[in-house]
Amino acid sequence: MKHVVDMSWTDKVAFEADMDGHKIVVDADKESGGSDLGYRPKRLMLSALAGCTGIDVIMILKKMKVEPEAFNVIVEADVTDEHPKHYTKMKVVYQFKGKDLPAEKLEKAVKLSEEKYCGVTAVYKKAMEMETEIRIIE
Amino acid sequence: MKHVVDMSWTDKVAFEADMDGHKIVVDADKESGGSDLGYRPKRLMLSALAGCTGIDVIMILKKMKVEPEAFNVIVEADVTDEHPKHYTKMKVVYQFKGKDLPAEKLEKAVKLSEEKYCGVTAVYKKAMEMETEIRIIE
Repeated sequence: MKHVVDMSWTDKVAFEADMDGHKIVVDADKESGGSDLGYRPKRLMLSALAGCTGIDVIMILKKMKVEPEAFNVIVEADVTDEHPKHYTKMKVVYQFKGKDLPAEKLEKAVKLSEEKYCGVTAVYKKAMEMETEIRIIE
Repeated sequence: MKHVVDMSWTDKVAFEADMDGHKIVVDADKESGGSDLGYRPKRLMLSALAGCTGIDVIMILKKMKVEPEAFNVIVEADVTDEHPKHYTKMKVVYQFKGKDLPAEKLEKAVKLSEEKYCGVTAVYKKAMEMETEIRIIE
């Protein structure tokens, strides 16, 4: 199967596409010659990862009848100073909030996403070091 | 330097974050248990790439005093059928529209982005095969 995105140049250095029925706009900040009309593209790599593994984990937890009060996926990425400015390491923090959450099930859900289901993790781990942390807040 | 994204679980399997002042929402489609409130996360990998290299190219062309009438960056990605469903190859099509566009300068701008400036290309090419095509339409 193929996935395709077609981004059109719309203004100065801004681009726009329709992604699965949702409009996405990328742009540079004003200091770099853009108008800040949308996302900085490189950071979309982080939301791709957080969203992909987050959706997996919450789907798996639902099957396990585990429902946290709150759940955040925080991705921290190291960026090089030199061109091409790119990510060399990512840390994914899975932060669950809730009373008496079963730590083993949370760990299992995260592991299943990272090793079996998340297609974004599968690509990034070929290119850089990936670290995982699970935080449980009562 | 570090880049950070913090995505919060908001609904069924949807997540939301603030990215550089812009709200981003990811969700699964209805068939997969989501509500289609936002982007499918894996496809954000494609818009990250199209946007990153598109912004580079249009900035470089501006310095070269080259202005196309229209410019699209189309990314076609091969996805595996098996889990983890991930991209194994991407083709980036740079499609310029305009009369008497200088092909050599367009090629140089694309090459500079792909080899020197685009931090998304720098990561993806460590993980998969990347192909480039330049199309010029009068």
